[in-house]
Amino acid sequence: MKYGIAIFPSKKVQDEANSYRKRYDPHYALVPPHITLKYPFESDDEEIEKSIIPALDEIAKNHKPIDIEVKKVGSFKPVENVIYLKIEPNDYLEALSDEMHKGAMEGEREHTFVPHITIAQKLSDDEFSDVYESLRMSKFDLTDRIDRFQLLYQLENESWSVYETFRLKGE
Amino acid sequence: MKYGIAIFPSKKVQDEANSYRKRYDPHYALVPPHITLKYPFESDDEEIEKSIIPALDEIAKNHKPIDIEVKKVGSFKPVENVIYLKIEPNDYLEALSDEMHKGAMEGEREHTFVPHITIAQKLSDDEFSDVYESLRMSKFDLTDRIDRFQLLYQLENESWSVYETFRLKGE
Repeated sequence: MKYGIAIFPSKKVQDEANSYRKRYDPHYALVPPHITLKYPFESDDEEIEKSIIPALDEIAKNHKPIDIEVKKVGSFKPVENVIYLKIEPNDYLEALSDEMHKGAMEGEREHTFVPHITIAQKLSDDEFSDVYESLRMSKFDLTDRIDRFQLLYQLENESWSVYETFRLKGE
Repeated sequence: MKYGIAIFPSKKVQDEANSYRKRYDPHYALVPPHITLKYPFESDDEEIEKSIIPALDEIAKNHKPIDIEVKKVGSFKPVENVIYLKIEPNDYLEALSDEMHKGAMEGEREHTFVPHITIAQKLSDDEFSDVYESLRMSKFDLTDRIDRFQLLYQLENESWSVYETFRLKGE
């Protein structure tokens, strides 16, 4: 079974992201707008309950709520025709994600951590250029306080369901 | 802001429900398959944090995991052209939902509690008859242990995002 770990930002930020995703992201219906902390990994009930959840409880206990900012979009071009709301560099967020790749949760990282909320993907090259050129000119001024993250699992239809919520409880 | 409280059953049950929802439920993409414990209600951050979540923590502490069974489908015809996986009568589940309509969470109940997982809705009368007649003949034999419920909120696009997870911790 595939699991992943993500942050769902506030309703305000999710609504803003969805206003683009609706048109430009075929994954729109599979999961709400999110910041991925750990990309999909294989696990099972036993490992999740005995090792992953205790590790995540510990991580949540040691991290305090994190303020994030979005000022502009970014893109993964030329690797992928993806456009995202760029989370401004944030050591706390990076540290949080790093901890999810250590100890009980060790595993090779396919990607450097680029905190983002995807708003467009699987666009043709022409679509990508059009949309990106127009969004690159837009100014964003979103701020949010992140006080939780979620462990999710993937259903057969590729949508994601939340298994557990972890509150950032550090002081 | 609209909130609701629901159970997401195991992946196995969600996948089974989705195999029907995909064809027959226009809400398929808005929320994973679920058992509603408390129908959408208006609230705000402050009430949620100060009064609803503490009440739900208390409820979760006092209820133990609940075994459920699905043996057949049911329908809300003639009120609505809805077909659902019928959860066999279950006092524990009913008690859990009842507690979410008392004290800090008091509010008029529009519906008697009929525990179910919707798999078809907004069908025309003809579609409804076809699908219901065929599903009524099917035997289901699903069992599941429910050990958590979730507080959700609704986004502008009418999809639902999980705010908090509550584990049933009673002995």
